[in-house]
Amino acid sequence: MARWEPDARGRMLTAALELFAEKGYDGTTAGDIAARAGVTERTFFRHFADKREVLFANPNSLDEMVVKAIAAADEQATPLEMVIGGVRAAAVGLAEARTREQAAQRSRIVEATPALQERELLKMAAMTAAAQAALAERGVGEPTAAMAAYGGVAVFQTAFSRWVSGATDLGLPECVDEAAATLRALT
Amino acid sequence: MARWEPDARGRMLTAALELFAEKGYDGTTAGDIAARAGVTERTFFRHFADKREVLFANPNSLDEMVVKAIAAADEQATPLEMVIGGVRAAAVGLAEARTREQAAQRSRIVEATPALQERELLKMAAMTAAAQAALAERGVGEPTAAMAAYGGVAVFQTAFSRWVSGATDLGLPECVDEAAATLRALT
Repeated sequence: MARWEPDARGRMLTAALELFAEKGYDGTTAGDIAARAGVTERTFFRHFADKREVLFANPNSLDEMVVKAIAAADEQATPLEMVIGGVRAAAVGLAEARTREQAAQRSRIVEATPALQERELLKMAAMTAAAQAALAERGVGEPTAAMAAYGGVAVFQTAFSRWVSGATDLGLPECVDEAAATLRALT
Repeated sequence: MARWEPDARGRMLTAALELFAEKGYDGTTAGDIAARAGVTERTFFRHFADKREVLFANPNSLDEMVVKAIAAADEQATPLEMVIGGVRAAAVGLAEARTREQAAQRSRIVEATPALQERELLKMAAMTAAAQAALAERGVGEPTAAMAAYGGVAVFQTAFSRWVSGATDLGLPECVDEAAATLRALT
């Protein structure tokens, strides 16, 4: 890929968020997004299969970061700590790829559009399954692997909704730390 | 409703599970289900909007059970214990409405059919939101309410997948106890 393309991706994300907010998700076409971002439709479709993927395609795969962190985790860590370490790594990656304002705008659009909400939930389910499989690779049995995977992703979801709520100045990784501490205090 | 109708619902669920397993979800019509269950199509549509709803309509609303249990929970309980108490009540209700074999058959069909998987995930997201709102009603602040709601639903999901896996003889409510004990041991 040419050097300018990552920037084109960022412009298309910004354009899509603006247009979805202005005209609604259903009222916006891929062509609208391309025009606003100053790229051709051809360029748009070289990056994204459709307008939905502008919101979901992630250059740094979050699942991969979670799996790698679990594989590399310290022997001494509990399975839940391994998953929380994984979602924290994913949080660092996500916060590098998007500003909080972009993430919050995106969340509002996803919440308001059932097809996007379903896609988001499938993403979380895939992250849970990936974490559970990575724990199994490390020899963690059931139901511990499932509980650690669901619990770690619950920490991520709590952190993410906190981050985009505007109720805190913490960054996303620090929101993961806060949610993990909250879970420990609750149990 | 006439007295025989709850039984007709049970027959339609059994018929749907058999037919989805035999002919696939897409290859089965509402008419097929009605015929196998020995009811008219009219009766089918008096109970269910479509074939999907045979798998999702629940006479005892799980969300309602969770919300009621949280509202009635002991003052001394932590917010996570309140949600776990709620999902345990839902587990009791669910295990009364379905046998493990029915739940396992249903899970296999849901896992294999993306549209059904999305519906199932939306159900879990709705349960989380209901639990979070019920905790807010009791004065629990954020991020504690979100963490307790996501964490409690994570316990339910772990328990449910354990129950239908066939790896244990425990009932669903006991699987909730097992998952909750696992979470405590992990934190």
